[in-house]
Parts: sequence; C-alpha cells; structure tokens
Amino acid sequence: MHVYKYNHSWHSREKSNIIVLLWWFIQGTLFRFSLHNMYRWRSFLLRLFGAKIGKGVKVRASAKFTYPWKVSIGDYSWIGDNVKLYSLDEIIIGSNCVISQESYLCTGSHDIKDPYFGLITKPIVIKDGAWIASDVFVYPGVTIHEMAVVAARSTVVRDVPANEVHAGSPAKFVKKRFEEDELL
Amino acid sequence: MHVYKYNHSWHSREKSNIIVLLWWFIQGTLFRFSLHNMYRWRSFLLRLFGAKIGKGVKVRASAKFTYPWKVSIGDYSWIGDNVKLYSLDEIIIGSNCVISQESYLCTGSHDIKDPYFGLITKPIVIKDGAWIASDVFVYPGVTIHEMAVVAARSTVVRDVPANEVHAGSPAKFVKKRFEEDELL
Amino acid sequence: MHVYKYNHSWHSREKSNIIVLLWWFIQGTLFRFSLHNMYRWRSFLLRLFGAKIGKGVKVRASAKFTYPWKVSIGDYSWIGDNVKLYSLDEIIIGSNCVISQESYLCTGSHDIKDPYFGLITKPIVIKDGAWIASDVFVYPGVTIHEMAVVAARSTVVRDVPANEVHAGSPAKFVKKRFEEDELL
Repeated sequence: MHVYKYNHSWHSREKSNIIVLLWWFIQGTLFRFSLHNMYRWRSFLLRLFGAKIGKGVKVRASAKFTYPWKVSIGDYSWIGDNVKLYSLDEIIIGSNCVISQESYLCTGSHDIKDPYFGLITKPIVIKDGAWIASDVFVYPGVTIHEMAVVAARSTVVRDVPANEVHAGSPAKFVKKRFEEDELL
Repeated sequence: MHVYKYNHSWHSREKSNIIVLLWWFIQGTLFRFSLHNMYRWRSFLLRLFGAKIGKGVKVRASAKFTYPWKVSIGDYSWIGDNVKLYSLDEIIIGSNCVISQESYLCTGSHDIKDPYFGLITKPIVIKDGAWIASDVFVYPGVTIHEMAVVAARSTVVRDVPANEVHAGSPAKFVKKRFEEDELL
Repeated sequence: MHVYKYNHSWHSREKSNIIVLLWWFIQGTLFRFSLHNMYRWRSFLLRLFGAKIGKGVKVRASAKFTYPWKVSIGDYSWIGDNVKLYSLDEIIIGSNCVISQESYLCTGSHDIKDPYFGLITKPIVIKDGAWIASDVFVYPGVTIHEMAVVAARSTVVRDVPANEVHAGSPAKFVKKRFEEDELL
C-alpha cells in the first residue's frame, strides 16, 4: 500500500473548498448551538447549503452533515442527536422516516485491492416510513425499503426489504413489521 | 407511518421545560468543563437536579444525563467518559458498579406496530458490583444483576444473570465470573 | 467488589499530572480547533508531547490521544475523525496504515477476578499497510498484521493475520485481501 500516492481526484465535493469550510463552520456554530426546538432554522441552514428538506422535518442540533448538498430528506422525517450523515455520495431519505440518535450513514469506502487505496462512494437510500433505531451503522450502497425497521446498535451491510425488521451485526431478518392482515 | 401525528403526551419528563433546558445548559458548561478530579462538584450538580447519588461516586465530566432526576447511583460507583444515560425512564445503578467509557444506556424505544410511532420507555437496572465495559449498548428494560460483567462493545438486549460474563451483539453467556469456590 | 479500594498504583502514566492536564488542555484547544489541513501543526504538537510521528502523517483535528508519549505512528499513516487512541499502554502504528473515523483503540481493561478491580493494560500493534475501517473497536493486546483489513463497525478481540480481511463482532476471517498471484 502506498497511501502517500492516494488519489481521489475522480471524486467531486461539488462545491469549492470555501463553501465546504463555510458549511463546517456554520454547522459547528449557528447550527450546533441553536436551541432545541429551532427545527425550522436548522432546515433553513441546510437548504441554504443545497440540501433538499421537506416540510415538518426535525433535525437535532447535534446532527452532522458532511456535504448537505448531497442530502435529501422527505416530509416529516426526523434526524436524531449525534446522527452523522457522511455524505460523500448521495443520502436520500424519504418521508416519515426516523433516524434515531447516534446512527452513522457511511457512503464512503476504499478499494482494498488498489495499491493507492482508491476512494469508493455509493449512495444510501432510506425509503418512506422506515425507522433506523439508535446507534445503527449503515454501509455504503445500502437501500432500506419502505416501512422497514433496523434495531438499535445494528450494522446494515445489505439492503433491508420493505416491512421487515432486521437486527444484529451484520443485521439479519428477525420478523415482519406488519402481518398481511395488518397492512392497510 | 404518520410521524407527524407522533404523540408522546402520556410520557412525563417530570420537570418543566425550563428545568430541562437549565439542566442541559449546566451539563454543557459547569459540568462539562469542570476539572478532571472535581467528582464532588459533579455529584453536587446532579443531586441539585434530583439525582440520587451515593458517597464516593465518580462521574467523569464528559458523561451525559438526559434527565438526572430519573437516575440513582449507589456508593462508590463510576460513570466513565462519554457515557450517556438516556434516562427517559428510570436508570438505577447499584453500589460498586463501573460503567466504562462510551457506553450508552437507552431507556427509550417506539411501538413499531403503532402508525403514530408511540414512545415506549422501560427502566434499566444495574445491580451491585456489575461492570459494563467500554462502548456497551444496553436496551430498554434490561436488568444486569449482581457482579455480572458485560464485555467491551457488546449489545445487551436481555437480562444478564448474577456473576455471569456476557459478550457480543447480542450479548451471550461466555462464562461465570467467579466459580462456586471463589465466591466469598 | 470493592471499587473504593481500587488501586492502580503499579501503572505509570510516565509523566507528571501537570503534563497530562497540559496535554488534555492543548488537545481540547490548539489541536482540536486547528484548521482541517494543518496536519504538520498537529504532528508537531504530538511530537512535543513525546509521540513518535513519521513523515507525511495525517491526523485529523478531532482525533484524541490519551497519552501521546505512548504512541508511535509510521510514515504516511492516517488517523481519521473522532478516532480515540486510549493509550494507557503503547499503541504502535506502522507506515501506510489507515485508521478510519470513529474507531477506538482500547489498551485498558480490568481484572474481573480481583475484588479491587485491578487495572490491566496491554499494547496494541497495527502493522504496515493495514486498514482499520470506520467505527472499529480494538481490544487490548491485539496485533493487526501487515496489509490486513478490518471492516467497518467490527470488534477486534484477537490478532488479525497479515493480508486477511476480518469483519463482525467479534471480527472473523472473511477472505484474503490479495491472492497469491496478486502479491507483488
């Protein structure tokens, strides 16, 4: 391995370094130290930096977004305390989703065969009504489908089908969320 | 799911919003930036906000308590760096317990069958002489019995019997801590 | 258990309390709030407090070192955001290593048979070209050998042989990183 020859020039942050640093500064100040209930203010700041944020979204002040312009969050979804959206690639969250505290959505990895340790990024998609409970780690490229649930402290390394509850490290099928006759 | 109709009105923080915000402010300032060895000062602040704290308790400055008035800690117990007591419900810690750094005691969950995603809370009990090692995640409703040990980075989803060592995600029985003839 | 009789007098921090507190103060200020690209400045501060830091090393500003004088990092290695080097004992990192964000290298434990809960410390060794991905927890005494890879969110409780990819909690063998004919 020759990490000193690391080259991720193919990858674009999509914004200039000035914008990136400005966002990190604002995230660490105006965003981080806003009062608990100032959800509209934080949605405003995120939109200002290019995030697509629906109506009624509740993002806690301690949540962190690496590049907000690569993030989209649908109506009424919640982003909990200390959640990290490591958005080197797109993170697309539907409506009525809950991402609970301490969870980490990781869109970046490296090519372990490449002697120069090339950067790999893949999008993460979380569909309507899904719940990612506390301290869950989601791998790059994963899709969590409609109404799925991931139990607290799980590690999600592959897609979770709609309406299924997964748990563990790696997360595996536990049960259906709703039975056939419970689905309206 | 209709997260926008989320209703947790049955749940009581037991204190007014002013007291909650005041605690969070003090936790982020006078508590957080107290010097390493000012254990008595931090116990004083916790007691001021209704926590029951025994004698000789050592809580590190970076530990976080959501609602201290729902927490009880027995004599000589330690709470390590960055431990989070997410005390929506009671957290009852015995005497001579150690909760090591980065661990998370989570008393809150949600009803995944409820279209309004109703809040569920259950107490966590940690009995005398138990050791929760670093970066352990404890689920709502769990009791960890006398002298039990949970290995570092485990996820505790069910009760741990007295004098047993559990490890893994989910944490499972590994061995007895003391053999019969070692118990005094 | 008699935590109040806890005695770790055998263990030496190797520096006076003044130096320890001074380091923690500098780490929380000059180190923590240095600009993103000031890698040389952070290497300078670490060396000032006794760390052996090679050339071209990149340590992020949010990384934390308990006692830098017990840490050695070889040429061109990277230490990511929020990585914690809990260096009660030695942490020896080779060259061209990557320790990704949120990982925790834990050199401390306790003797669970000892009624006074005696401190145990063991070194951690990470050899040339190894990659510890995001949010990995490494147990005391573990050696991760040349060119090994530990997948994100794993828990490493025993040694990882050279050129192997391990994943899970506890981390287990998944595959070889390079096949025989790929090794140059």
